[in-house]
Amino acid sequence: MSEQIVVVGGNAAGMTAASRARRLNPELDILILEASRFISYSICGLPYYVAQVVGRHSDLVQFTPGRLLEERGIRALTGTRVVEIMPGRRAIRYVEVESGRETVLGYGRLVLATGYHPVLPRFVPEHGVGGLITFSRIEDGLQLRDLIASRPRAVVVGAGYVGLMMAEALIALGLPVTVLERGRQVFNQIDQDMARLVQEELERNGVQVLLETGASGIVEEEGRIRALEIGRGRVPCELALVDVGVRPNTDLAHQAAIPLGMSGGVQVNRRGMTELRDIFAAGNCAQTIHRVTGRPVVSALGTTAAQQGRVVGENLAGLPCEFAGTLETSIEKVFNLGVARTGLTSEQAFRGGFEADSVRIQSRDRAAYYPDAQPVHVKLVFERKTLRLLGGQIIGGGHAAKRIDTVVAALSARMTVRDLAQLDLAYAPPFGTLWDPLQIAANVALRKEDAG
Amino acid sequence: MSEQIVVVGGNAAGMTAASRARRLNPELDILILEASRFISYSICGLPYYVAQVVGRHSDLVQFTPGRLLEERGIRALTGTRVVEIMPGRRAIRYVEVESGRETVLGYGRLVLATGYHPVLPRFVPEHGVGGLITFSRIEDGLQLRDLIASRPRAVVVGAGYVGLMMAEALIALGLPVTVLERGRQVFNQIDQDMARLVQEELERNGVQVLLETGASGIVEEEGRIRALEIGRGRVPCELALVDVGVRPNTDLAHQAAIPLGMSGGVQVNRRGMTELRDIFAAGNCAQTIHRVTGRPVVSALGTTAAQQGRVVGENLAGLPCEFAGTLETSIEKVFNLGVARTGLTSEQAFRGGFEADSVRIQSRDRAAYYPDAQPVHVKLVFERKTLRLLGGQIIGGGHAAKRIDTVVAALSARMTVRDLAQLDLAYAPPFGTLWDPLQIAANVALRKEDAG
Repeated sequence: MSEQIVVVGGNAAGMTAASRARRLNPELDILILEASRFISYSICGLPYYVAQVVGRHSDLVQFTPGRLLEERGIRALTGTRVVEIMPGRRAIRYVEVESGRETVLGYGRLVLATGYHPVLPRFVPEHGVGGLITFSRIEDGLQLRDLIASRPRAVVVGAGYVGLMMAEALIALGLPVTVLERGRQVFNQIDQDMARLVQEELERNGVQVLLETGASGIVEEEGRIRALEIGRGRVPCELALVDVGVRPNTDLAHQAAIPLGMSGGVQVNRRGMTELRDIFAAGNCAQTIHRVTGRPVVSALGTTAAQQGRVVGENLAGLPCEFAGTLETSIEKVFNLGVARTGLTSEQAFRGGFEADSVRIQSRDRAAYYPDAQPVHVKLVFERKTLRLLGGQIIGGGHAAKRIDTVVAALSARMTVRDLAQLDLAYAPPFGTLWDPLQIAANVALRKEDAG
Repeated sequence: MSEQIVVVGGNAAGMTAASRARRLNPELDILILEASRFISYSICGLPYYVAQVVGRHSDLVQFTPGRLLEERGIRALTGTRVVEIMPGRRAIRYVEVESGRETVLGYGRLVLATGYHPVLPRFVPEHGVGGLITFSRIEDGLQLRDLIASRPRAVVVGAGYVGLMMAEALIALGLPVTVLERGRQVFNQIDQDMARLVQEELERNGVQVLLETGASGIVEEEGRIRALEIGRGRVPCELALVDVGVRPNTDLAHQAAIPLGMSGGVQVNRRGMTELRDIFAAGNCAQTIHRVTGRPVVSALGTTAAQQGRVVGENLAGLPCEFAGTLETSIEKVFNLGVARTGLTSEQAFRGGFEADSVRIQSRDRAAYYPDAQPVHVKLVFERKTLRLLGGQIIGGGHAAKRIDTVVAALSARMTVRDLAQLDLAYAPPFGTLWDPLQIAANVALRKEDAG
């Protein structure tokens, strides 16, 4: 019987699981199978490659299979798609993408780290159309960088994380960009009041934003996109970037009858074990727990994927490590703003049944008299009765939004806004204000509750 | 009997106490007495005024007495030195500095917010000498800006927080600067291994640093300094900035027999009350509690002073608020580096009787492929057995060192390095790395303990 550990998927979760396991136990025999041409790449860096901030796509790639073997003793096959799991036989079947050749391979233990699929809206024809692309693999970036050479008019469908970054990348290249968003705000991971600031920044930098506007169809000519239909009108374009969401890639799990959780991700315990013996799952295909609500969620974040992968790696090596869960913390650069969030938004707290309140303040990231002070907007969401923090959102210039990490620590420790107000945070004129924006927000929250 | 609240000292602690009390209860009659010519100024901003980064000293001043009265309904007298407290009579005696006129004034409640005195080394003559100055008031900055007009050779005595900032300010003005430090490292609030990085940055920028070198005497000519004597040699200079430490200004408390604590600061409870009825103390003259050790300390930080002042203000207004204590968190800009610390250093942990261990890592503040990535050095100090965090130090370019706030929250919540490693911190290529430097450090700590 094979003792080999097979990891399906060679990015954040899969790479981290393999590396951690091997580091803890150099005897382990580990093979990574990756469908795309690259392993260990930064999908988060792709927009910067498109914007030509990053020169070569290889800069986004940490390891080639050769280097991975040499430096970490882990084998990896790229262009290798796993198409079936046979749990009874403890084997998988994979296809080499180029040749179509199939192989059946035994495993001792198996790790599913298959990531997500981009959701395709109904108007996208199944056969695909030239000039219309989604974003989930490095190859998409290569394709896009080719497409923009002809200086197309671009439409971004969906004002999510990736869509907005792509809009910025295209503007940086001097291309006209329109963003179509079905909802009433951009970037729905933050509340509408904060999203307004992001929209203003987009518009200030030349992005046309159309809210409550979904695409309903495509106009194509000779297999290439010429316009998107919206209601009764059309938006002409030679390039359409679609980012209307992602869903966990559970194709393999589904085929092998590995149970999924309520969230739609592969059901795992805190150690990353699925319901089937010796099969683990980690990353954006796997379910995890929200640290504030305790409810099951799937995350589309590389950070959570890497942490889940690490936990699986430790367990593969025999350490009984458990994953603490996600806060869905993210940070994004939108032109000159950092946009960060963690925990629950007001909207999410309401939908989650919390009796929540919130405060929003504007301040600065350094002393008023110090040059280049940047505005900072902080929103805190908290439970009305207990004052327990539920979430935070920060928008600001420079690196101001990275202050979200302090909210992350506070949330993880189940602090109240009073606890947050009393933290002994760092101050010097170039780096902050005597009362940090987080403390100002917490103090406003306390004052509000005193008065209430 | 007077109901008036008299606050002695018009900076971080005193201003905050007065403002907070008055905000909560607009009926309160509050008078601030300040010995210097200014209230509500940023002593932390003074080096930037000297360096001409800040144009006018008035930019450092938040309120004139007129504006304070108008906007907050609080009266303030500047140039007014309180020279005696008569607790039995519930009165104080003050002197108008210009005229020498004395007044006795009754109080209902009294707040001592007298800050600190700079420590003067023995070699400084009591009568003072032209060109030799310390730094604790805005007037010192005005005097220094006059002195540098003649482009003197400058020596900084003491490589502490203020001394290093002043060295940078003078270099920015093109003046040659030598720093003399008695100890074996610069900036003794951090460990020697981290201080080495600060020293390199100073030297890289043209500051001459002489360690284990104390000044033993002064050479003066016509009442002006011409050189400092060190051992058998001399360092010629026309300007000597002395920063060898501060001590709480407890002159008034001592005179009035208000008990001091073990730390040398005025003894107060968590609500800021001294042992004498209706007399409070806050800020750098008052004792507080260290949040890690639970032991009494005095702080020289504006942040702690403001927080203590806020607590006293709440209590003056009838809210039974308590101060949570200090972590002695600080951040400082030294040329292109931010230098931050919180909690205990390795050295302090050792002296405090902790069985402590530490890790130190180097990483970056953003993705390697993203432009202008800055180096970040993180040191974590933790208890060997429990893995409980005891302190952290961060040195890095840009705003990277402001990450110390996450360590502050972790320390305040008594997290272990394992808890820190599991935080769901924010990542995007312009703002961080997939594993934040804090997590990298925490993971190295865990690995070390696994192996140990």
